[in-house]
Amino acid sequence: MGLTKTIYVGPFAHCVSLQELDICVDGAIGVDESGKIAFVERDVPTDYEPSKEGWSGAEIIRIGDNGFFFPGFIDTHIHASQYPNAGIFGNSTLLDWLNTYTFPMESSFKDVNFARRVYTRVVSRTLSHGTTTACYYATVHVPATNLLSDICLEKGQRAFVGRVCMDRLSPDYYRDESVESTIADSRACIEHVKKIDPQHALITPVITPRFAPSCTDESLCALGELHKETQFPVQTHISENKAEIELVKELFPKSKHYTDVYDEAGLLTSKTILAHCVHLSKDEQSIIKQRGAKISHCPASNTAITSGTAKVRELLEAGLTVGLGTDVSGGYSPSILEEVRQAILVSRHVAMDHGDPAKLSTEESLYLATRGGARVVGLEDKIGGFDVGMDWDAQMISLGSVPEDGEMGELEGPVDIFLQESFADRVNKWVYNGDDRNTTSVWVKGRLVHRKN
Amino acid sequence: MGLTKTIYVGPFAHCVSLQELDICVDGAIGVDESGKIAFVERDVPTDYEPSKEGWSGAEIIRIGDNGFFFPGFIDTHIHASQYPNAGIFGNSTLLDWLNTYTFPMESSFKDVNFARRVYTRVVSRTLSHGTTTACYYATVHVPATNLLSDICLEKGQRAFVGRVCMDRLSPDYYRDESVESTIADSRACIEHVKKIDPQHALITPVITPRFAPSCTDESLCALGELHKETQFPVQTHISENKAEIELVKELFPKSKHYTDVYDEAGLLTSKTILAHCVHLSKDEQSIIKQRGAKISHCPASNTAITSGTAKVRELLEAGLTVGLGTDVSGGYSPSILEEVRQAILVSRHVAMDHGDPAKLSTEESLYLATRGGARVVGLEDKIGGFDVGMDWDAQMISLGSVPEDGEMGELEGPVDIFLQESFADRVNKWVYNGDDRNTTSVWVKGRLVHRKN
Repeated sequence: MGLTKTIYVGPFAHCVSLQELDICVDGAIGVDESGKIAFVERDVPTDYEPSKEGWSGAEIIRIGDNGFFFPGFIDTHIHASQYPNAGIFGNSTLLDWLNTYTFPMESSFKDVNFARRVYTRVVSRTLSHGTTTACYYATVHVPATNLLSDICLEKGQRAFVGRVCMDRLSPDYYRDESVESTIADSRACIEHVKKIDPQHALITPVITPRFAPSCTDESLCALGELHKETQFPVQTHISENKAEIELVKELFPKSKHYTDVYDEAGLLTSKTILAHCVHLSKDEQSIIKQRGAKISHCPASNTAITSGTAKVRELLEAGLTVGLGTDVSGGYSPSILEEVRQAILVSRHVAMDHGDPAKLSTEESLYLATRGGARVVGLEDKIGGFDVGMDWDAQMISLGSVPEDGEMGELEGPVDIFLQESFADRVNKWVYNGDDRNTTSVWVKGRLVHRKN
Repeated sequence: MGLTKTIYVGPFAHCVSLQELDICVDGAIGVDESGKIAFVERDVPTDYEPSKEGWSGAEIIRIGDNGFFFPGFIDTHIHASQYPNAGIFGNSTLLDWLNTYTFPMESSFKDVNFARRVYTRVVSRTLSHGTTTACYYATVHVPATNLLSDICLEKGQRAFVGRVCMDRLSPDYYRDESVESTIADSRACIEHVKKIDPQHALITPVITPRFAPSCTDESLCALGELHKETQFPVQTHISENKAEIELVKELFPKSKHYTDVYDEAGLLTSKTILAHCVHLSKDEQSIIKQRGAKISHCPASNTAITSGTAKVRELLEAGLTVGLGTDVSGGYSPSILEEVRQAILVSRHVAMDHGDPAKLSTEESLYLATRGGARVVGLEDKIGGFDVGMDWDAQMISLGSVPEDGEMGELEGPVDIFLQESFADRVNKWVYNGDDRNTTSVWVKGRLVHRKN
């Protein structure tokens, strides 16, 4: 990669536990040639110069008082192919939304040129929002899915890329033709990733049954076998919407419940990412916990298409692992920062019905977006925080400051700091009013992958 | 003002009823020297040139395909003095939030220099979000409140400016000293506005009892008298939070309910703006309807500080008039576009409990932000739409377009248009992902008051 040793000097913040945001006002984080964090120093002087042996020639990147380094965001659930529909869903709910908006859009990815245009924009756009890792759903198409892997690798975004599997209750114009083609096409996408990134340094294939209603028992079981054989992770949807849950009951009359459908097919393991989990029963939570499967909470989507409110506090207290997902385009925004906000806001709606303990704090929601997401994708030893030995997947956050005369400058960002704010208050201001304008640089594995001018 | 006749050529959209957004793809709107809309033409050619008598020398402002003119937003409830706290509220609810964050911040407006810095920024910032009319709460301080009126006038924002009245249950360091000082100070602010803008072309004073718990019976009645005498409008809070409602019951044991407190004091008239209305009883709705008082719905705030969900559909069906308010800083954002989004999202939470009819559409929420707000402030004949005879209070909205290669440009805005979208879909994309970057010009009464470069 040709990286040089780099030391990031200035304030940084990262989550050290669900409740605790560690804020270091005068830090220095050394990142080695492989993009790994070699040391983290605190209480360094403003004019810090490297003193450690072997670091004298290191590049130094400083951040001013009104900014801080923060771990890159992890989007644990995003449909790259639905991005052109972001914000378009009207008053629909899940099942009619799929037929009205989603399937027609996804089917157009048989055109590789259209796919290139959209996927290029999605990867650039999510990087600009500080998303350093994304779990993508592509479409059923092999060439377009492989192109998404290529683009992520080229632009340097860490990604899990899944070809969508769907062989029933899908429109004639957009579906897998058979169980055999489901598996063959999934294998083709896996082989492509193994070829372009053999160590899965950045790109990992992910086995992606769309959701139970879209898959026959046979294809679910065959995908379970593929998971067992390849050990690549699984992603799917579960318990998003009440009509969907009823449909699963009808389609799988022998299964105890929705979770059981995946469990019986061998698709519920410690490498499974389950999106939504809005209406899970206690029994389902318990089985998910036993299997070690993970949860992607998608609050913007759950509100936008009126699916319901996931009970995140309850899930956390049941010992489940939770991260955040934008769920574009059920979710309208490609920004995990928006999702952090929405996770907090949705938790307040839960609190209105279930009491104050349901509320997620800013710190907790940021944890879900970073460390939580890292655990969801099985990379908690590599990303999500600034610990020695982790990869430098990070964003530089810069906030605006209001001058004495109060006037606005050109190209003013969305966050106004008056300078009497504590550092914790500044983080809150960023969470509530910040956007991609505040994300001025983004790195993955030490490589600069986005910069604002 | 030295305005020249101007014709705005290109697509425009405005609400013609609660349900209907009128989209005109090829419009031409003529605005005369007084800032009034003189004509609205449709189906004009792209190379439109003025043909009407007297308009041959008019300035022409054209907007490209990826943009449209839209009425300026009306923020029917914003605390200008709380803006430095935007995004800072932690897990608090109304009554503790007031004591922890709000009163200390507001008290610092005894320093006029601080007030100038904050108010300058608030007016610039809200203009940049397309807010052409704002109903401001200032603080108890006369000089700072008058300064806010001055700044609005200078920057050209239409504003209702209220000195906050509070003579009980307020901290020693921040309160009115007596009923007499409440009235004298309110009069002083009214007189100031009468001096700087005698016709109230832009600035109108508004009588502002903070909320019932902050005011003695005597001051409420005296303010009711002042309203009757001056005929200036009234703004206050009502039924925001359950603990607040209990407190009002205790403090006003003889009143039938919260609404009755204001009604008995002569503060509930057709010129009254009531913020929140989250937990109103049917009886209260009915009295508000009878008196013709108006409602400011503040969804972001109601969620952020866990006040509850206002039942907007129910209020509308009861024949009440509703507009939107940011309620900075109970609300975290100075943007009415964010409030449009939040109104839709909160209505979905209401729908989860009360059924689908509760959902507000994009069109309905935009109506609340424009025509609805105009009715709330009593200016429905002047602002909120593009009807002949109305003032040109407008914003130019510009959306981004994704090039064939999909790559992002510098300073890319937040909305990606792929060009297969219908105009209505573009409006939805703006509502869900747009921000102040898309508001490229703003006019009030024909005067350009904000422009992005």
